[in-house]
Amino acid sequence: MMEDINIKYDESITLEDRSAPILIEGLPGIGHVGKLVAEHIMHELGATRIAEITSIYFPPQVIISENGTVRLCNNEIYRYKGELGSFLFLVGDFQSTSGEGHYLLSHLYVNIARELGVKRIYTIGGYGVGHFLEVTRVIAAINQESLKAEVETAGGIFSEGEPGGGIIGAAGLMLGLAKPFGIEGICLMGETSGYLVDPKSATNVLSVLTKLLGITIDDAKLTERAGEMEVALQRLLEQEKKSDEELSYIG
Amino acid sequence: MMEDINIKYDESITLEDRSAPILIEGLPGIGHVGKLVAEHIMHELGATRIAEITSIYFPPQVIISENGTVRLCNNEIYRYKGELGSFLFLVGDFQSTSGEGHYLLSHLYVNIARELGVKRIYTIGGYGVGHFLEVTRVIAAINQESLKAEVETAGGIFSEGEPGGGIIGAAGLMLGLAKPFGIEGICLMGETSGYLVDPKSATNVLSVLTKLLGITIDDAKLTERAGEMEVALQRLLEQEKKSDEELSYIG
Amino acid sequence: MMEDINIKYDESITLEDRSAPILIEGLPGIGHVGKLVAEHIMHELGATRIAEITSIYFPPQVIISENGTVRLCNNEIYRYKGELGSFLFLVGDFQSTSGEGHYLLSHLYVNIARELGVKRIYTIGGYGVGHFLEVTRVIAAINQESLKAEVETAGGIFSEGEPGGGIIGAAGLMLGLAKPFGIEGICLMGETSGYLVDPKSATNVLSVLTKLLGITIDDAKLTERAGEMEVALQRLLEQEKKSDEELSYIG
Amino acid sequence: MMEDINIKYDESITLEDRSAPILIEGLPGIGHVGKLVAEHIMHELGATRIAEITSIYFPPQVIISENGTVRLCNNEIYRYKGELGSFLFLVGDFQSTSGEGHYLLSHLYVNIARELGVKRIYTIGGYGVGHFLEVTRVIAAINQESLKAEVETAGGIFSEGEPGGGIIGAAGLMLGLAKPFGIEGICLMGETSGYLVDPKSATNVLSVLTKLLGITIDDAKLTERAGEMEVALQRLLEQEKKSDEELSYIG
Repeated sequence: MMEDINIKYDESITLEDRSAPILIEGLPGIGHVGKLVAEHIMHELGATRIAEITSIYFPPQVIISENGTVRLCNNEIYRYKGELGSFLFLVGDFQSTSGEGHYLLSHLYVNIARELGVKRIYTIGGYGVGHFLEVTRVIAAINQESLKAEVETAGGIFSEGEPGGGIIGAAGLMLGLAKPFGIEGICLMGETSGYLVDPKSATNVLSVLTKLLGITIDDAKLTERAGEMEVALQRLLEQEKKSDEELSYIG
Repeated sequence: MMEDINIKYDESITLEDRSAPILIEGLPGIGHVGKLVAEHIMHELGATRIAEITSIYFPPQVIISENGTVRLCNNEIYRYKGELGSFLFLVGDFQSTSGEGHYLLSHLYVNIARELGVKRIYTIGGYGVGHFLEVTRVIAAINQESLKAEVETAGGIFSEGEPGGGIIGAAGLMLGLAKPFGIEGICLMGETSGYLVDPKSATNVLSVLTKLLGITIDDAKLTERAGEMEVALQRLLEQEKKSDEELSYIG
Repeated sequence: MMEDINIKYDESITLEDRSAPILIEGLPGIGHVGKLVAEHIMHELGATRIAEITSIYFPPQVIISENGTVRLCNNEIYRYKGELGSFLFLVGDFQSTSGEGHYLLSHLYVNIARELGVKRIYTIGGYGVGHFLEVTRVIAAINQESLKAEVETAGGIFSEGEPGGGIIGAAGLMLGLAKPFGIEGICLMGETSGYLVDPKSATNVLSVLTKLLGITIDDAKLTERAGEMEVALQRLLEQEKKSDEELSYIG
Repeated sequence: MMEDINIKYDESITLEDRSAPILIEGLPGIGHVGKLVAEHIMHELGATRIAEITSIYFPPQVIISENGTVRLCNNEIYRYKGELGSFLFLVGDFQSTSGEGHYLLSHLYVNIARELGVKRIYTIGGYGVGHFLEVTRVIAAINQESLKAEVETAGGIFSEGEPGGGIIGAAGLMLGLAKPFGIEGICLMGETSGYLVDPKSATNVLSVLTKLLGITIDDAKLTERAGEMEVALQRLLEQEKKSDEELSYIG
């Protein structure tokens, strides 16, 4: 029987060359702020893919590449090691299709972090407010009170009652699940209308995150990347709507 | 792989200091009558937290505290031992997100009760009638006929056909699952419109429950607590609505 | 951890006193024709309860009896042995809440049948047509072609394309799952509007079934029983609607 | 406990007589193009059934044959060996009722392919565009770039952004899951309105597929078969609608 969740490391890479003290999670979510920020940093730094995660908790479909070849939906781990430090990135196509899957996948992500020597996890997301905003803040949450001052200094805002008492999906669960292992967790949520891939919100989050990381990343290409991502996501969302119909049709 | 349900006891507390003959369950439900009554007694008595339960059957999100730190959704066991007796309390953020989870969690709760020497379980809930009421009754159900007279003397009402043949969630299942182990089970349901946290209904339930427990609990702060809970729950419910949208968006 | 499905036999009854060559299934379904017919025969014959089945695949609620005591939702096995022969009856509160549960429970029922020496299974259901009918037929299906003549002689009708290519739930699955073990399976479906407990449809099914069983059962009380069942079911259905709301509220 | 997925080979057939280098999947889907094409070839060649797959992930119902006998929903493997070559066919009643089931079943299908010596898998489906078309193309996807030229020569079209980034269900997952085992995978999707069994779309797919297989199959009976399938499917779909109601009623 297939494993419910599979992780496959690139075998040419040793454990040492997989490790890093920092993990940045940027999976799909509100306004795709997390995805945009994480993938932007990753590409600017030239990170290398070290592992692929597939799971029965992802949607039951394959993704078609531009050349017509298919691949399973996945999440991926990338790693950068260089002048600016060592960072791991968790990015991918989807989060889980079920509540139980969210827990089981987030648990795996935290286990990977432990195995690869991670001391701090940043999870990046959007905070959807449902209407357009002139100025967008970066709302923060942490899994240890001692992290607060550092986050505030970098520009993160702690606002009681925002986001309404909870953070959904991997961005929240990874912080909660990492806590008992002493791994620091910081969630940065870019305020966004939530309707489109939001480069303005992502720019603000990038600014706070890079201050925390102590690095400089050019944000010139962020808007361009947002536009490309928007096109790709619209296709995927249309497909998902169809797939809901199709699943009800073939199931 | 993550366990589907996890219970973690405070390790500084011995088994003897965890035990008590009475368990009072007050998880979220209709009008949050159970939650309000159980948490009110618990706080008035100054009960101590002895265990935390987390599960993949809870919603896949974390709760943000006032200071900006996050924690996993959980249910908790508190214990009071003092002049008024020994009581355990089962309270928490949510019940299960699936029917199977309701059974598996309730089974765990009954196992905990057995392990901690519980002889009687009180489950507290609301009985939603869907319209505002001048006078609200406390409807009762039991898992052994011998308990009837005692409950009626304390003011509980057995009304054939109310609540319509069934009790949903932990309040009902714990009674049914405890029965084969000879653990007495009494469910007290405060009649309520079901729309808001209902302090009037909770006051009535508190009156019946404390008579059964043979203790006196001041109800002065019940209305105040109801107001606070209402604010917190409104935030959580808004968040839940958003999270349904978000889950469909990221899943 | 709780078993997903539990069967508990009355321990005072030996395996020999549990066995019978015929099993009659009458679980809830369209028009509650199956439930009505099976329970009517069972009560007229004075059958004895020999086993109780509980499961996490039943709705997460307890049933309240007239005296205020609760019990878990269950399915039950009754047995009659006497002048008229030996029969087992499978009756209960609900079928499964999930598709997977339907398969797993039906598989258990067939395993019970094998263990108790059953050679033939009758499954009784309703065939809902969605409008009121003057004359209601008894539509039949079988799991071995050799049974056809016998069923037709008793008044069962094989009508190509009715019911539209499929039988849902235990009434169908038990026939399919029993087939590889050489257990004969006959499904009798009373045509019904499907709106109410339908004593007219049940009377027709009772007539065909008793001919097949070679026994005579008085049908005088069938209408009375239907009325009682209607009252009980209306309460349960109202409760179920509420419980859907409540589950979404507490989950 | 029942296995979640069961495969039963006809025991009179040796492993050698089960094997073939090519597997053609034609399970139900959009416009039932895959089902129509695969079953047409299978019948024209006179393929033999070698295995039956049943699963708790199929809908919980049985199918009634014309003679009134029932069988469990299933998927089946057929095999042809003769002058034209050796081919396996995967056809059946339904795909999975859940996302997780889609993965687990597709994984099984790929394992079967590996066991039976399959070197190439063709998955056939429809590409629903939601409106009627004068000319319908055959859109293709592959799991290795080296297959592209061969598919294009046979008439398959690679169109960037069609089908919108993904292929749902077994047609996609089998290609993705087969890839790590070096099994070639080609998906052919007949453009179709998606409303009815579409013989025109199927004729186009048949033409491309037979070129790829290097065989000739008469398409004269394709329209006739489409008509028959339409009648059968309408019955099944009506039944499914009813079964949704019935499941909510009995569950």
